Amino acid sequence: MWTVKTVGLGVVVLSLSAELIAWLLCRLKPARNLNEVLFFPSETSCLEHIFTPSSPRSCVCSLPHGVETSFSRLLRRIMSASSSLDLCIFAFSNMDLSRALLALRSRGVTIRVLSDKNYAAVTGSQIGVLRKAGICVRCHKGSETMHHKFAVLDGRLLVTGSLNWTLTAVQINRENILISEEPDLVQPYIQEFQKLWTQNDPAQLGLGSDQEAARLTSEDDAPQ
Amino acid sequence: MWTVKTVGLGVVVLSLSAELIAWLLCRLKPARNLNEVLFFPSETSCLEHIFTPSSPRSCVCSLPHGVETSFSRLLRRIMSASSSLDLCIFAFSNMDLSRALLALRSRGVTIRVLSDKNYAAVTGSQIGVLRKAGICVRCHKGSETMHHKFAVLDGRLLVTGSLNWTLTAVQINRENILISEEPDLVQPYIQEFQKLWTQNDPAQLGLGSDQEAARLTSEDDAPQ
Repeated sequence: MWTVKTVGLGVVVLSLSAELIAWLLCRLKPARNLNEVLFFPSETSCLEHIFTPSSPRSCVCSLPHGVETSFSRLLRRIMSASSSLDLCIFAFSNMDLSRALLALRSRGVTIRVLSDKNYAAVTGSQIGVLRKAGICVRCHKGSETMHHKFAVLDGRLLVTGSLNWTLTAVQINRENILISEEPDLVQPYIQEFQKLWTQNDPAQLGLGSDQEAARLTSEDDAPQ
Repeated sequence: MWTVKTVGLGVVVLSLSAELIAWLLCRLKPARNLNEVLFFPSETSCLEHIFTPSSPRSCVCSLPHGVETSFSRLLRRIMSASSSLDLCIFAFSNMDLSRALLALRSRGVTIRVLSDKNYAAVTGSQIGVLRKAGICVRCHKGSETMHHKFAVLDGRLLVTGSLNWTLTAVQINRENILISEEPDLVQPYIQEFQKLWTQNDPAQLGLGSDQEAARLTSEDDAPQ
């Protein structure tokens, strides 16, 4: 009788402890990192609800409403930045993405944009628009092409891929965007951005005169 | 006395079960997925030891030997494919990467290459070389640019980024490559490749005559 009671008690304790440990592990397990892939070209749809979420039904344009597309998902991710956005981009002419950066800036998000010097000057480039709005912009000064197309949001979310921030890339080309919170992936991009940002600091470019330094500073690095 | 024995036994059972569960969890926990990021331009170095690992000291070229670079790491990843390699690439003119694909093919790795139709015909493109070697190549037939630069190895390793497979991208430009085994990232690229591969099957292109079908088949889809 004693043996039966003891074995029974042991089984109960074993079951309870297993349940308890499983519950604890489940509670303590870190949330899974976000990973998402988007492919383009994207369908077109009305994006006003992303820019003005407080009045989602205010737009009466002819574009489809309430449709989730690759581009609306990308735009929503970009607009989710709450403290900082570092963008390293070869070509930037997409007006919706430019509007997104201006909206983030008006919310107080710290934005830094590093662009290729040759592309920044072409017709339709939004680099000048961003600079005029007071966003901190630098152009890569090397003779080589700065071909990156990545952004890091809030120091934790990576947005990268083949897609330049242009209308053609979004609406016509076959392109991809990879979005990830994996620290192993995000951290190297943060370091690369910081390296390129520092390398292209007008004050570090070994300029020959104060006048030249002043010219480059006003051209490439407008105050935030 | 009975109570003391019972409580003691309960404690022992509890401890043992906790140990057992912890051990099981440790054993059952999947290995951490590979995530790696490479930045370019890459330094140049001798790559012969990657192509001929059986005789690592055979090369007497003037390039630095035994130096690990971004490109040697990329090449080593590409050469690690053991069963399949699906490549979706806008521009492919890099002869080392072409040599890698030819070496993989000679090992029996199934290779599929989808390229942009306009770039495939330019001087220096390796698409013709691959096709002549019997690698299965298709060119994207749409009027839009096929701007992807990704590969999937063995259905489990993603290689993607801003980098076209050209010498300029590897040795001159500022570029990035992201390598990942995360299933959430790899699977969408597998699906996208399969979609584009099927869409660009010459047999599915609605050709008007047997002659045209034969021409496109020989041009775009050489047998493996």
